[in-house]
Amino acid sequence: MVYVGIDLGGTNIAVGLVDEGGRILHQGSAPTGIPRPYQDIVADMARVSRDVVAQAGYTMEDVKAVGVGVPGIADPETGVIPFCTNLHWHNVPFRDEFHKHIDKPLFIDNDATVAALAEYVAGVSAGTHSSVFLTLGTGLGGGIIINGKPYSGYHHIGSEIGHTIIALDGEPCTCGNDGCLERYASATALIREARKAYAEHPDSLMGRLCGGDPANISGKVAIDAAKAGDPTALDVFNRYVHGLAAGIISIINFIDPQVIVLGGGVSLAGDFLLNAVREAVRPMVFFKTMPYAGIQLAKLGPDAGIIGAAMLGK
Amino acid sequence: MVYVGIDLGGTNIAVGLVDEGGRILHQGSAPTGIPRPYQDIVADMARVSRDVVAQAGYTMEDVKAVGVGVPGIADPETGVIPFCTNLHWHNVPFRDEFHKHIDKPLFIDNDATVAALAEYVAGVSAGTHSSVFLTLGTGLGGGIIINGKPYSGYHHIGSEIGHTIIALDGEPCTCGNDGCLERYASATALIREARKAYAEHPDSLMGRLCGGDPANISGKVAIDAAKAGDPTALDVFNRYVHGLAAGIISIINFIDPQVIVLGGGVSLAGDFLLNAVREAVRPMVFFKTMPYAGIQLAKLGPDAGIIGAAMLGK
Repeated sequence: MVYVGIDLGGTNIAVGLVDEGGRILHQGSAPTGIPRPYQDIVADMARVSRDVVAQAGYTMEDVKAVGVGVPGIADPETGVIPFCTNLHWHNVPFRDEFHKHIDKPLFIDNDATVAALAEYVAGVSAGTHSSVFLTLGTGLGGGIIINGKPYSGYHHIGSEIGHTIIALDGEPCTCGNDGCLERYASATALIREARKAYAEHPDSLMGRLCGGDPANISGKVAIDAAKAGDPTALDVFNRYVHGLAAGIISIINFIDPQVIVLGGGVSLAGDFLLNAVREAVRPMVFFKTMPYAGIQLAKLGPDAGIIGAAMLGK
Repeated sequence: MVYVGIDLGGTNIAVGLVDEGGRILHQGSAPTGIPRPYQDIVADMARVSRDVVAQAGYTMEDVKAVGVGVPGIADPETGVIPFCTNLHWHNVPFRDEFHKHIDKPLFIDNDATVAALAEYVAGVSAGTHSSVFLTLGTGLGGGIIINGKPYSGYHHIGSEIGHTIIALDGEPCTCGNDGCLERYASATALIREARKAYAEHPDSLMGRLCGGDPANISGKVAIDAAKAGDPTALDVFNRYVHGLAAGIISIINFIDPQVIVLGGGVSLAGDFLLNAVREAVRPMVFFKTMPYAGIQLAKLGPDAGIIGAAMLGK
């Protein structure tokens, strides 16, 4: 049997046909096209799903289930999507709507949770007892897998690790609180601090890398400058790692997963980030001589959304 | 069948005989008497257990299992206690030692975890899907129950919620990090801030309540003065609640339990604390219109240690 996995984003609907082992057999996509009625978006999701299945040489008979990762919260039991801020969705009866087009078992979950599941099935946390996935992107998404199952809590509002508070009365967050992890460890936070530091240190290498226009300072610019040893960028990078390490220590001391996986844009910094994070975390561990969570880079990249969504139905 | 529950503390060994429903049938105790060899402490634990069983009119034949809550971390599988700082224990082969005295199935876990289990079996979180228990005492202990089972993580070092970081570069903690929840939401933190505030505001009601000696300012003094409307004490109390609420929001946004239970010394402030915490948490919830964890006061008080330990074997 094969599975359809749909990664529903604010910009694109990415659809893939995925086999039992989490390998993508064929892919397709369509623009999400917000704002438009959810009924139209769901119709396009179904249409691209049918196309992808056919193009891969399969029929809908071969498809065991359809899974969808959404940039918001999802109620896996009712199939309702209570909140999807980027899409302006509120209490959308997603499963019912989708079933008007394709009558297959349909599973939904949060996009970071789905990425965590992908890494568990076919990535760096394969076969582990428990893992926590962090997407270091525009925001900071979190996914929790325990005993092979996504864990989003009793009311399905959990795994919002970007909105755990690491800095009392710290940076104001879009959620209304202050000091959320997302304000310190997302790509957005890295860019914000890099631009601030460049304004204070216009001699920084970041200036050359961004062509003198601070609007061009991306996470990559900041990290490339830090890798090259630029002191201003290194300072920004080290403070970024300091915040991320505080979040990771809280995860370890709270639910002690077997593995913590770093994904999203900032994780493309690779070993430069990984080694810095591991070094920052090590001296902060509570029980110094006990083993604790391995910290790893995500393996599947942007495909994790499709793979994990597909594997919801496995 | 009945169960023996042992609450192993830094001062006392408290032992109880407990029935299936989590009711204590009979109790006994002995001083822990640290520092002395762990073998002697375990021998006393076994001796008091036998006494309590006999005094209650039972025999060891009636006892299904023995459970122990320890003020440290425990490996429930091997029965080894890797760390118990208060007792100066390090890698103590606890189960093997206990079995030299009493040959019954023996279960061990962290004391806050055990209290969480007690509230799940016979207290305020009875029958819930998931609960997080916080002991607001000298330290801040945490216990997690998911689907009726204690959850301490993959390496058994989890549920140390007192050592999640809520204030980056904040108050130095005994664990070596800065800004741990324990530094803001334990009784010790409340007392520290109350004494500081009294030094700055000697006209505070706390002065009368402590007989003019700041060393007499306890958590109760601070809370009694806050209840009476003393502005200095109220300010201390409100900041305490602010820190605790940040920790609770992080718990909700991370693992979204059905219930969060407040126990330990500070929880004796009762509804005055509970209402303040609920009011502080409500506007901080991420998804404003979604249901989230109920916040409740612990019901079992100091007996939770014995009851929960006994119920480990159920």
